Amino acid sequence: MKIVVINSFLKETHKEKIRKAAEEVSGDLLFAESEDEMPEEWEDCDIIYGFGMNIAKKNKNLKWLSVPSAGVDYLMKPGVLANEDCLVTNSSGSYGVTIAEHIIAVSLIMMRKLDYSYRESLEGRWSSPQPQKSLKDCRILVLGTGDIGSCFARRARAFEPLSITGVSRSGKSTDPCFDAVKKTDEIDSLLPDADLLVMSLPDTPETRDILNRERIAFLPEGAYVVNVGRGSAIDEDALCESLNSGRLGGAALDVFKTEPLPSDSRIWNTKNLLITPHVAGNLTLEHTLNTNVDMFCVNLERYGKGLPLNNLIDRNKGY
Amino acid sequence: MKIVVINSFLKETHKEKIRKAAEEVSGDLLFAESEDEMPEEWEDCDIIYGFGMNIAKKNKNLKWLSVPSAGVDYLMKPGVLANEDCLVTNSSGSYGVTIAEHIIAVSLIMMRKLDYSYRESLEGRWSSPQPQKSLKDCRILVLGTGDIGSCFARRARAFEPLSITGVSRSGKSTDPCFDAVKKTDEIDSLLPDADLLVMSLPDTPETRDILNRERIAFLPEGAYVVNVGRGSAIDEDALCESLNSGRLGGAALDVFKTEPLPSDSRIWNTKNLLITPHVAGNLTLEHTLNTNVDMFCVNLERYGKGLPLNNLIDRNKGY
Repeated sequence: MKIVVINSFLKETHKEKIRKAAEEVSGDLLFAESEDEMPEEWEDCDIIYGFGMNIAKKNKNLKWLSVPSAGVDYLMKPGVLANEDCLVTNSSGSYGVTIAEHIIAVSLIMMRKLDYSYRESLEGRWSSPQPQKSLKDCRILVLGTGDIGSCFARRARAFEPLSITGVSRSGKSTDPCFDAVKKTDEIDSLLPDADLLVMSLPDTPETRDILNRERIAFLPEGAYVVNVGRGSAIDEDALCESLNSGRLGGAALDVFKTEPLPSDSRIWNTKNLLITPHVAGNLTLEHTLNTNVDMFCVNLERYGKGLPLNNLIDRNKGY
Repeated sequence: MKIVVINSFLKETHKEKIRKAAEEVSGDLLFAESEDEMPEEWEDCDIIYGFGMNIAKKNKNLKWLSVPSAGVDYLMKPGVLANEDCLVTNSSGSYGVTIAEHIIAVSLIMMRKLDYSYRESLEGRWSSPQPQKSLKDCRILVLGTGDIGSCFARRARAFEPLSITGVSRSGKSTDPCFDAVKKTDEIDSLLPDADLLVMSLPDTPETRDILNRERIAFLPEGAYVVNVGRGSAIDEDALCESLNSGRLGGAALDVFKTEPLPSDSRIWNTKNLLITPHVAGNLTLEHTLNTNVDMFCVNLERYGKGLPLNNLIDRNKGY
C-alpha cells in the first residue's frame, strides 16, 4: 500500500507521527512538499493525504484522498477524480479554533472601527473612530452550526449578554452554545434580527448565493457580515452595493467567488469591507496542523482495520 | 446646590435621568457641551460631572468633581484643584466591557497578523500573513486586576486552554477569572512566562515606567504587549527598540506618554506596533455611557443623603 503525504507545512514531529501510523498498516510512505516534487513511480499510490488534486485527477488506483482542508467542493465535480469510487475525507474539526478566533477578531475590528484607526495611524494621524459598537447585546445569526460555527459561538458567549441563533440543514445542533437552532428555510424571517451574520457554510448547490440580493436587503441597517465558508455563498455585487451605500455596517470576507481576488476586482475598493486572503483557517497555526495530522493518523488506523472512515464526504450532500 | 454637567456625548435619555437625580437632591442643574460654553454665573458651582478641569482649577467652592473617565492622574498634582478638599470620583466600572473587547481585538490582530493582511489589502494585494499565533495555549499576564483586567480575563477564558495570571498591589482579587493573582513586586519573575502582557494600570508613582528596559528584556522572544492604562507605565524608547529588532512579536498601545502622539514621533513608524488613539474606552459605546451616567446618578443620591461616595479617589494612592 503506497501512501503519499503532500504538505509543505509539516514538521519533523508530524512526519514521525505519520511514519508510525503508516508502519502500523504496513504502508510504504512518501513525503513530498508539493505535487511537482513527486516521483513518477508514486503516481499510482493508494492513499493521498494532502494537496494532491492533480494526481487524484490522473490516478485510477487511488482509493482514499484525505484532504487537509475543510472544504472539498472542488473535488465534487464529476470527472475530477480519476477513480469515481475513491473515498474522500476532509479535515473538518481541525479549523474550528483558528477560524473562531478570526471571526471574533474581524467582528470586533468592524464594530470598533479599528480598520479606520489603523489606516489613519499608517498616515501618522491621531483620529478617533466614532461611534463604536459592541459584541455585547449583539444579536448574532450563524449559518452553519458545525465545528466552526460552534467554536465561534462558544467564544462569543463570553461577551454576554448577547443572543446567538444557529441555522443548519436539520435545524438541530447538539451544542448548547446556541440559544436556538433553526432550519435553513427559515433564514428569511431570521435575517431582519441579525446584527451580525456569520457564514461558515460548505459550497453545495443549496448554499450557492444563499445570501442573495433580496436577503441582503432583509438585514437590518448597520448589520455586519462575516464569511469564512465559501465565496460562492454570497452575491458579491449586491453585498458591495449595500456596503458602498452605507446601508450595512461592514463585512469581513475571507473567501471569494474568485481566489486570489483579481487585482482589478471592484471588491478591493468597497467601503467598510475587510478583505483577508483566505487565511481564517490555514495550517500555520500549530494547533490546527497538529489536529489535522492526528485526525489523519486516526483515520489511517481505521482504514487499516477496515473501519468506516471519520469525516467521510457524502458525494450527494457535497460535505 | 449648583450642579454642572459637561459632556457632549449625552443624549436626551441621559439628561432626563440626570434631571430626575438632581431634583431628588433639590439641585439646580446646567448642561453644557464644553467648558467654553458655560455661563460665568455657574463657575462657582458645587458639583461638576464631566470634563470640567479648567473650572475645577479656578472654583474654590467646588465640593465634588465626578470625572467620566477612569484615569484621574492629571487631577492629582498639587495645585490643580482650587479647592484642595474637593472630593474626586472616577467612573471606573463603566469601561470594563469596551476596553476588554479592545484588548481581545488587538491581541488577535497581532497574533493573526491581520494588520499585515489589511495593509496588503489596501494596496490590492492578496498576500497571506504567516505564521499565525493563537490565544489558545497562551500564557497571559495582566497587570491591574480591576474592572478592566477582570472583564478582559473573563472574555479570554472562552479561548481556553490558556493561563491568566493577574498582578495587583495587594496580590489578591475576588474575581475567579484569574488562575493566580500575584503582588506587584513579583513582576520580574512573572515576565519570562508572559506570551501576552496586558497592562491596565492607573498612573501613580509606583506604576510609572513599570515596564522599563530591563523588564522588557525579561519578556520571552515573540511576546506581545497591550497597554490600555496609561502611557507613563512604559519606557517607550526601549519598547520601540525591542519591536524594531524583532525580539517582541508586537505591541498594541492605546495610550502614550504624550497624547495626541506628535506627528513627528518615531513611535508611528515602529515595526509591529499597533497604534490606537486612546479609544479603547470612550463614551461612544452606548453601554459605556449608560453605565457612566447611572453611576453618577447613584452617587448624586448618595451625596444628597450624606453617604460616602462610590469610586472616591484616595489622593495618596492616586486612584
